[in-house]
Amino acid sequence: MNRKGRIYNFAAGPATLPPVVLERARASLDDWQGQRYSLLEAPFTGDEFKTLMDTTRLQVKSALTVPDNYQVIFLQGGASAQFSLVPMNLLPPTATAGHVETGHWSARALEEGRRYGRSHVVASTRDTGFDRIPAVSEWALKKDLHYCHITPNETANGVQFPGDPDCGEIPLIADMTSEFLSRPVDIERYGMIYAGTQKNLGPAGLVIAIIREDMLGQARPETPTVFNYQAQTERQNRINTPLMFGIYLVHLMLDWLNEQGGVDVIYPHNIAQSQVLYRIIDEDDFFYCPVIPEYRSIMNVCFGIRDESHQPRFLAEAEAVGLMNLAGHSHAGGLRASLYNAQPDAAVAALASFMANFRQRYG
Amino acid sequence: MNRKGRIYNFAAGPATLPPVVLERARASLDDWQGQRYSLLEAPFTGDEFKTLMDTTRLQVKSALTVPDNYQVIFLQGGASAQFSLVPMNLLPPTATAGHVETGHWSARALEEGRRYGRSHVVASTRDTGFDRIPAVSEWALKKDLHYCHITPNETANGVQFPGDPDCGEIPLIADMTSEFLSRPVDIERYGMIYAGTQKNLGPAGLVIAIIREDMLGQARPETPTVFNYQAQTERQNRINTPLMFGIYLVHLMLDWLNEQGGVDVIYPHNIAQSQVLYRIIDEDDFFYCPVIPEYRSIMNVCFGIRDESHQPRFLAEAEAVGLMNLAGHSHAGGLRASLYNAQPDAAVAALASFMANFRQRYG
Repeated sequence: MNRKGRIYNFAAGPATLPPVVLERARASLDDWQGQRYSLLEAPFTGDEFKTLMDTTRLQVKSALTVPDNYQVIFLQGGASAQFSLVPMNLLPPTATAGHVETGHWSARALEEGRRYGRSHVVASTRDTGFDRIPAVSEWALKKDLHYCHITPNETANGVQFPGDPDCGEIPLIADMTSEFLSRPVDIERYGMIYAGTQKNLGPAGLVIAIIREDMLGQARPETPTVFNYQAQTERQNRINTPLMFGIYLVHLMLDWLNEQGGVDVIYPHNIAQSQVLYRIIDEDDFFYCPVIPEYRSIMNVCFGIRDESHQPRFLAEAEAVGLMNLAGHSHAGGLRASLYNAQPDAAVAALASFMANFRQRYG
Repeated sequence: MNRKGRIYNFAAGPATLPPVVLERARASLDDWQGQRYSLLEAPFTGDEFKTLMDTTRLQVKSALTVPDNYQVIFLQGGASAQFSLVPMNLLPPTATAGHVETGHWSARALEEGRRYGRSHVVASTRDTGFDRIPAVSEWALKKDLHYCHITPNETANGVQFPGDPDCGEIPLIADMTSEFLSRPVDIERYGMIYAGTQKNLGPAGLVIAIIREDMLGQARPETPTVFNYQAQTERQNRINTPLMFGIYLVHLMLDWLNEQGGVDVIYPHNIAQSQVLYRIIDEDDFFYCPVIPEYRSIMNVCFGIRDESHQPRFLAEAEAVGLMNLAGHSHAGGLRASLYNAQPDAAVAALASFMANFRQRYG
């Protein structure tokens, strides 16, 4: 267990946050920015909150070196809402969207997207159990695709794109929920990036979207105004009350990320953490990882015990020593250790040590 | 200024919260329910959070004596999102919705609702400056109306329905955002009640909906799955990550409301608070209230100074003594004091005293 008697939390999200961010968040519930009232009591129309939103947008732009022709907006409803809102906002009824299916979440995006028009799979790894990322050269990309949707990191399956794909003129739309701000991104390959913030950035319910300006202006008439990307961009997220506490937490997380040195520093750190676990998994046949090494996620280490009968004991013993939430996603089974930006090295070391010890005792 | 050197906050929402709720919320960010991690770090699939959601739903049902054939669900996107999602979920494309227009927010609901089909105004007080609530006997209710939408309390205009209207067989749909849990409600007159929680219940972004079961099952195909009332009801709000911190705050606010004696006790208390201010306003011609007395809001006291040139000074002097956020809604102008459940009597007394003193000096 870490300091303050807490446990180590490997949940896939909501997930571990830095103690300093939690401390600052607590303080904001008492007296926010010396205003003598809590952030939860602050009017969203006030100058303080306007400044907070502007600052947080700039922090996102700065953290990922976002070019000037992209807008950053805050959306509500979680990333799953965008599975519908992306086609409602960006896909004209006569156009076709491509989807790359690489796991549970890209399949959900595809399933929902199909309800709004022509969406087809340009590549899928379903047949090999989502164990890899197909090379762009294998994608059935037709020139008339309006956009191509990808899920660069699959939280449930532990598979991650090895880089930002180059689809030429076809804009990528990416659900980066579980890898957002964990690595540098070549933004210009994307027409839109969206991310639920409950992984690397704290609160559930909030979505950050980075949208290339020329993608806007195509919303279908039935798009609800508060979910209309262009309307929210033009009104700078002030059509309705934004998720204020969530935006504040994101601001605090971006401060913290900056204090760590930004994505250029946290990225190799994230790789190193995941390698500690993958090394143990690969050492012999006791554990296994279903994903081909070069496509393994640095955020969600999905693995299993070859003798599945050990799994309940593994989870129970782990919990007994404060290593929590190591069960895999309900659709994927097995085990999973999520290592978002805020996961401390001590947590990874403790889990690695527990895994090695467990194998020694039962292997 | 109140204890702890804080100010009195008359904002229309997000608004003042009870200090004990803020204290409990702060504690939850450190160690939630003895789990040794923060509520913000808790997995939404865990038993603790399931129990919290179940408990909070039951608290809502208990607080308003909700009959068994109604479901309570938590939605995201704020009340404004429901302006679109209500017709998407509840209004078949060939059906007609009625709207009662009594101020800024009912007009917004009507404007958005019209984008989804046949919506017409059954009654409006626009011609008299939203100074009253039209009697049901004056509403142009046709039997074929699928539902009738009302906004029982108009936050921007300070006008409030004197009770729950009886529309016979036509189900009412009510945006109760700014009066939810401030008074007892005859639930059975409603097909659906929805309320953004940033007024009487704390956090921005969360919506509580109470839906009569027979209203479900009519969602249009283009309704996003996460915003589909029936789907979220069937899945008990677990289609996607709920607004966890928001739900916890609502739970704390319902605990607090219960400690105050519930809506039967808080309702006369709310009336009494508003009467303190209306009495001063009506005492002579210095101040005025544009709303006819029997329709005046007990939540949002909207008023003005007859000599408008005094208004900037009124706001500046009020702020100087810690009476904050008294400017009216941007669409209505004038002044406004919001008196949600958590507004302390001392705040009302301080404002009343300031108003009397200001009038004495400038009247």
